[in-house]
Amino acid sequence: MVSSHILSAYDEELKYLRRRISEMGGLAEQMCGDAVRALVNGDSALAQKVISDDVILDHAEREIQDKAIVTIAKRQPMAADLREIIGTLRIAADLERVGDLGKNTAKRVIAVQGHGVPRKLARGLEHLSDLAAVQLKEVLDVYASRSAEKAEAIRLRDEEIDAMYTSLFRELLTYMMEDPRNITTCTHLLFCAKNIERIGDHATNIAETIYYMTTGAVPEGERPKDDTANTVGAIAD
Amino acid sequence: MVSSHILSAYDEELKYLRRRISEMGGLAEQMCGDAVRALVNGDSALAQKVISDDVILDHAEREIQDKAIVTIAKRQPMAADLREIIGTLRIAADLERVGDLGKNTAKRVIAVQGHGVPRKLARGLEHLSDLAAVQLKEVLDVYASRSAEKAEAIRLRDEEIDAMYTSLFRELLTYMMEDPRNITTCTHLLFCAKNIERIGDHATNIAETIYYMTTGAVPEGERPKDDTANTVGAIAD
Repeated sequence: MVSSHILSAYDEELKYLRRRISEMGGLAEQMCGDAVRALVNGDSALAQKVISDDVILDHAEREIQDKAIVTIAKRQPMAADLREIIGTLRIAADLERVGDLGKNTAKRVIAVQGHGVPRKLARGLEHLSDLAAVQLKEVLDVYASRSAEKAEAIRLRDEEIDAMYTSLFRELLTYMMEDPRNITTCTHLLFCAKNIERIGDHATNIAETIYYMTTGAVPEGERPKDDTANTVGAIAD
Repeated sequence: MVSSHILSAYDEELKYLRRRISEMGGLAEQMCGDAVRALVNGDSALAQKVISDDVILDHAEREIQDKAIVTIAKRQPMAADLREIIGTLRIAADLERVGDLGKNTAKRVIAVQGHGVPRKLARGLEHLSDLAAVQLKEVLDVYASRSAEKAEAIRLRDEEIDAMYTSLFRELLTYMMEDPRNITTCTHLLFCAKNIERIGDHATNIAETIYYMTTGAVPEGERPKDDTANTVGAIAD
């Protein structure tokens, strides 16, 4: 009786951690969308909201961490249960980083506001952001369903975001070369694009962590990488 | 007799983790210096070495992680010992990220090589990189000595790197505006500067983790932040 009582309290602790991760995920997802909307529309109030939300996200990570450590110390879990908790710590850290990237984008609103973001530039960034939002949303769904197979599928799709980032990078460079007055705005947009591309990387990290939590193994093979924006150079000649 | 034998095996495991973290730190530190040298001198062979070193660093993180989890499961540590192992996991993750940032810088060698990095631009980047290297080296020394006081001192010094990054960001923007032929090279240098600034952030994270490992607490107050480069805009008018 006592033992089943303890077991159930333990299950409650794991459930609590899971719920908190889902909440963090929901907030991080919303922040990313808000940050790009704030930037594109020059909406300082929305940018400020993203910056405040990041404080909530930071506290959530710290709370999950404390809770997870207390659970490990109290319950001394083994194997799958231990992986579950270690995985929770890693996912919380990734979501916290996603929030930081959203905040960084939001902060740039002040920089581009006066200049305004030309519609044709905004479109590419919005598209990239939508793709990252889908990736983040889906990986959070997989977190709830714990399918190693789906986690692996999401992990392999990071390629798409990388390719779109590379194309946006090239496009923004050409706008800068066309007109020096675009340089500051486009530089900030380049960093925002990079932030969004990295949100995709964190979604991929989360997919790998779910795979590990479910199977105890690390996914086979390098994830496909098409980050040629790091080496784009020829178009500047 | 048996119990002291177990205790000593446990100490050996902790010592092993500590040694592996120091090795990771040494490699990450070297990679960062090499990456900037490779970039500034257009040295593709050195860039390739940094990219290969990153694979070693990734494997080291994974190995530390597996080892740490086995240790938690086998030894079921409490309080300070548990913090030690959780802290180890976090530091390994930060060092792995430092390696990624070094690799990202090294990859840009291909992009700027044909153009060459003007001496006056390289100087600012080298200076920033030296500062980050000192920060990283000192935090690794503090990891060995476990002084919460020194960890806190390093954490507060991140400000200096942020200020220098902001100044370099402004400088690079002006070079881009002066001559559109600088745009591609300077864009890559901006990203490299951002990478180095983020290496400073990871050194700060490590300092916070050491503080936590030593005291069980999180350092008081927000760390000073002077990342106004995110909001620099006026100079583009």
